[in-house]
Amino acid sequence: MDLDLTADVVSVCSQLVDLESVSRNERAIADAVESALAPLPHLDVVRRGDTVVATTDLGRGERVVIAGHLDTVPLNDNLPSRNDGTNLHGLGACDMKGGDAVILRLAASVAEPARDVTYVLYEGEEIESEFNGLGHLAAEQPALLRADFAILMEPSDGVVEAGCQGTMRIEVTTHGERAHSARAWRGVNAIHRAAPVLERLTAYQPRKPVIDGLTYHEGLNAVGISGGVAGNVLPDLCTVSINYRFAPDRGEAEAEAYLRDLFDGYDVEVADSAPGALPGLDRPAAKEFVEAVGGVVNPKFGWTDVSRFSALGVPAVNFGPGDPMLAHKQEEYVPLEQLRECERVLSSWLGGGR
Amino acid sequence: MDLDLTADVVSVCSQLVDLESVSRNERAIADAVESALAPLPHLDVVRRGDTVVATTDLGRGERVVIAGHLDTVPLNDNLPSRNDGTNLHGLGACDMKGGDAVILRLAASVAEPARDVTYVLYEGEEIESEFNGLGHLAAEQPALLRADFAILMEPSDGVVEAGCQGTMRIEVTTHGERAHSARAWRGVNAIHRAAPVLERLTAYQPRKPVIDGLTYHEGLNAVGISGGVAGNVLPDLCTVSINYRFAPDRGEAEAEAYLRDLFDGYDVEVADSAPGALPGLDRPAAKEFVEAVGGVVNPKFGWTDVSRFSALGVPAVNFGPGDPMLAHKQEEYVPLEQLRECERVLSSWLGGGR
Repeated sequence: MDLDLTADVVSVCSQLVDLESVSRNERAIADAVESALAPLPHLDVVRRGDTVVATTDLGRGERVVIAGHLDTVPLNDNLPSRNDGTNLHGLGACDMKGGDAVILRLAASVAEPARDVTYVLYEGEEIESEFNGLGHLAAEQPALLRADFAILMEPSDGVVEAGCQGTMRIEVTTHGERAHSARAWRGVNAIHRAAPVLERLTAYQPRKPVIDGLTYHEGLNAVGISGGVAGNVLPDLCTVSINYRFAPDRGEAEAEAYLRDLFDGYDVEVADSAPGALPGLDRPAAKEFVEAVGGVVNPKFGWTDVSRFSALGVPAVNFGPGDPMLAHKQEEYVPLEQLRECERVLSSWLGGGR
Repeated sequence: MDLDLTADVVSVCSQLVDLESVSRNERAIADAVESALAPLPHLDVVRRGDTVVATTDLGRGERVVIAGHLDTVPLNDNLPSRNDGTNLHGLGACDMKGGDAVILRLAASVAEPARDVTYVLYEGEEIESEFNGLGHLAAEQPALLRADFAILMEPSDGVVEAGCQGTMRIEVTTHGERAHSARAWRGVNAIHRAAPVLERLTAYQPRKPVIDGLTYHEGLNAVGISGGVAGNVLPDLCTVSINYRFAPDRGEAEAEAYLRDLFDGYDVEVADSAPGALPGLDRPAAKEFVEAVGGVVNPKFGWTDVSRFSALGVPAVNFGPGDPMLAHKQEEYVPLEQLRECERVLSSWLGGGR
């Protein structure tokens, strides 16, 4: 299928939605994107797997990355797209083919941007991290992502969301001694020993640090608990799985130290971990961008791919059309006016802050 | 296989151990028991499934039941039996073919007991209650179990264990509201809500009532806990499975009321329940029995089939050879001297208290 990037952004978005691209099946949409961008004389186009990178090279003093993933969550009886005059409905309309449509329109129409641009349309964001196209670039061709600033066009209701919180999951295990429950005094109940672990969680007061003017909001939650041998046996093991979401002024090592201190005396293992990303709103490119889009910035609480840029030293924000609460829902849609407004704002900013 | 009940109790026991009878496979041993008892002129023998009941009917003023189960837990590379001169080893030697051997020796050798006797050798004790041969008799032919006193010959190290504690398992469920763990303030964590449940368990002080001179010892223990949806989701449910062991002065209704009061405000469901059994040591038959065996009586903490007699209004005790801590262990054995002593004591008591 040929993408017509001379059409308006709503039309481009509906073309993208109708190009079904559930994760691990992004070949067709990546082909269409590559074919549409490759002929444009102001862009260098590189393909890696089903990730397409298109770059301007105008020798500007500044470079920005504008990125979006091409894949969607699985089909849920929500294709083809449907335009009701106010919203465009369909799988991926919100997350995030609306953002992709804006990216493609910018790539095609802004031939002489005031800042050099690297457009990245990548595969494998909705599934395990090992398939993430942006992750592959960061690991293997980081030079392609080198920039002063990055915009990830995930749905954010057209408001800048800066930084992202880190996440760490630990398992706290208590140990006891089995015994028949009819003679409980002969054993030690590991589930009872987990009571203080839950007490520490309920007593927890979240840190809410202010970073670059944004108020983050940490969280510490049991996300799983298990223990038990049989209905008449005192259990010798109980494991509480705990997820810590930490503000981006705290690194992974610091987060782990905090948890080990909080659960001092317990058997603590880190199950997985991903760092946060500082908002980086002190950088000139970021400042100008925030001003250009109207000055409203919210902190990003969830973990997103912006932290991949952060790890490369590139400040990054989320900014895109669509209500993030609709992501992954059968009824997802993107408001037509948000699509147009995002394109307008970004086009103006790329053109030189008009 | 023919059982030779004229042999001594140790030999009868080794014959029984070598007759493999894992639960649901008691046909051969029940056949052997029935064939050995049926020719004895002082006994009426009735069979129901793989349960054998042999009764004297001498018109004595008093009747006692002496009972033992014929089945064992699964094979564990511990057959055939082995006699080392001090102990008889092998599957079921302790639990409870030692007791069965004593029963069969008594049935064969005490032709004119001072009190009428109902010997019960039953199937299906080591598995789900629905297979329990004593339970079948109690439900369908309770007249066969009518008596003034009952002795269940489960291993008790040759000491009388009187009564048994009741058991009740409840599930206490806490409810919350799911939310992404990155925005925990939008939800309610059901695992955190279980903290006070565990606190009440750790604060619990067991009741230790004295009944007929015996000190019981209650217990309240979490035997299972589960909750959790995914590593990034606040769970909306957490269930704590709790086992309450209650002394026999407390009925099931009272036990349930106690638990509902203790966990007031929580969603409480009774998963299963079995009543305890009062020691009944005030009955003449019981008193004489205790005196005959030396006067030492301990309370029984675990639930046993004595409560099936109790439910029929028959006071019952556990009394048998073998260390109860060896039950269900691969290395189980029964001391030869305990076998002989149990037979001697019971034979004497049945003979008229000599």
